[in-house]
Amino acid sequence: MTRRGQSGGERDHVAVEEPMEVRVNGASFAVIMRTPGADRDLAAGFLLAEDVIRDADEIGTIEYCQDATDEGRDNTINVTVTGGAVERLTARLTDRRQVTMNSSCGLCGRRTIESLQARVATVGGAWTVPAAVIASLPDRLRASQAAFDATGGIHAAGLFDRTGHLQQSAEDVGRHNAVDKIVGRTLLAGRHPLDESILLVSGRTSFELVQKALLAGVPLIAAVSAPSSLAIDLATEAGITLCGFVRGPRFNIYSHPHRVG
Amino acid sequence: MTRRGQSGGERDHVAVEEPMEVRVNGASFAVIMRTPGADRDLAAGFLLAEDVIRDADEIGTIEYCQDATDEGRDNTINVTVTGGAVERLTARLTDRRQVTMNSSCGLCGRRTIESLQARVATVGGAWTVPAAVIASLPDRLRASQAAFDATGGIHAAGLFDRTGHLQQSAEDVGRHNAVDKIVGRTLLAGRHPLDESILLVSGRTSFELVQKALLAGVPLIAAVSAPSSLAIDLATEAGITLCGFVRGPRFNIYSHPHRVG
Repeated sequence: MTRRGQSGGERDHVAVEEPMEVRVNGASFAVIMRTPGADRDLAAGFLLAEDVIRDADEIGTIEYCQDATDEGRDNTINVTVTGGAVERLTARLTDRRQVTMNSSCGLCGRRTIESLQARVATVGGAWTVPAAVIASLPDRLRASQAAFDATGGIHAAGLFDRTGHLQQSAEDVGRHNAVDKIVGRTLLAGRHPLDESILLVSGRTSFELVQKALLAGVPLIAAVSAPSSLAIDLATEAGITLCGFVRGPRFNIYSHPHRVG
Repeated sequence: MTRRGQSGGERDHVAVEEPMEVRVNGASFAVIMRTPGADRDLAAGFLLAEDVIRDADEIGTIEYCQDATDEGRDNTINVTVTGGAVERLTARLTDRRQVTMNSSCGLCGRRTIESLQARVATVGGAWTVPAAVIASLPDRLRASQAAFDATGGIHAAGLFDRTGHLQQSAEDVGRHNAVDKIVGRTLLAGRHPLDESILLVSGRTSFELVQKALLAGVPLIAAVSAPSSLAIDLATEAGITLCGFVRGPRFNIYSHPHRVG
């Protein structure tokens, strides 16, 4: 009744997961479990989401560490940052040093959204897109996803223009990583804000995914699965159109439906 | 062509996501985005996975912060720890203070597994379970999952005995959280190691999920979707039987197939 997955052939179809250490100006910042490939894009997108960089101009170089051992050579990347990012980096590292939080005891989704809004405006993009285009996006992304078809175990994200043309796609064992790769790649290409683009994700939409879209200026998110309550709240506040359960001709619109029609 | 999801009725079926701050002995340790409920279980399981606690005896109390504002009252939890956990907490907080890593430049999956193995032995459990029992687990879990059926946007995990009887289940917008809730609940109940149990997860299996199972002593993991390469590597090293694509009578076995038969 079972297929055994230990043969070499089966193993070839498993999504690769490896840790990557992200260093900023030589200092260890984070370790991300990710599918190798597009590591520079991932590092850039991750540092944007982490509020270390806010702009491509703040990035100097992104390079694999030269002193790595053979087996770890491709798993440690150093990003040099300049300008305001240096100050933000120091602040982030100081945050980690503080044992006691400054905030009063009482975290909630509302405050999380307010703190994000303090540094990002709402998105632009006063355009509309036909519902049929949104409904077609999962098939268009799938057609470009070699790894997904082969392993079934990888998340994908795609960036589309308003006519449904695929501009960028990325895959990763981590769904946040797939979005970070796209955001980072377009950031490095000088294409932000992405206010003419649609972001499609192959899974669910969490608060963090909406946050990443907001930081990149994406006005419309479509997801194959469901959003969380806080994802809807943030999309509503940020002016982002959030679609979910995009799996056929029917789908849900959770916020700002005026862009669909 | 579209259903609009903004009405109150639709909104009721969205999985709730809220941030939770975990404090340890009064010091802020982490913020987790999670579905509220089972917060004590989640905090305990999370601190086990983070190697702050290694045993239920090291936990004193787990309580919501008394000084919270109304809206954040249920989102900040403090865990008091004793014994070896105090030292480990200090070490963890010191780690975060160190700007420069001590390790040489060269992170890789192999070293990640070795570092984990330095503190955890392989799992026990010299029993077998029929393939038909494993194949039946997703339906058994689904029958207990009110939220999954209602929202479609939540991850679930279940703990079963060797006859396929459901012992524990948990749901969360984060799939790691669902497992942390189960691990924490059984830890607090004094039931570790879980060497007579099977863990089922509703999604994919990552390195981190296998790590959580290993720390709890679970010898068999079944997942509805695919594992990553590093998940298979760790399961192989740790003596864990890892099954994937458990979606019907057929499924894959990626490591230690001797427990299935």
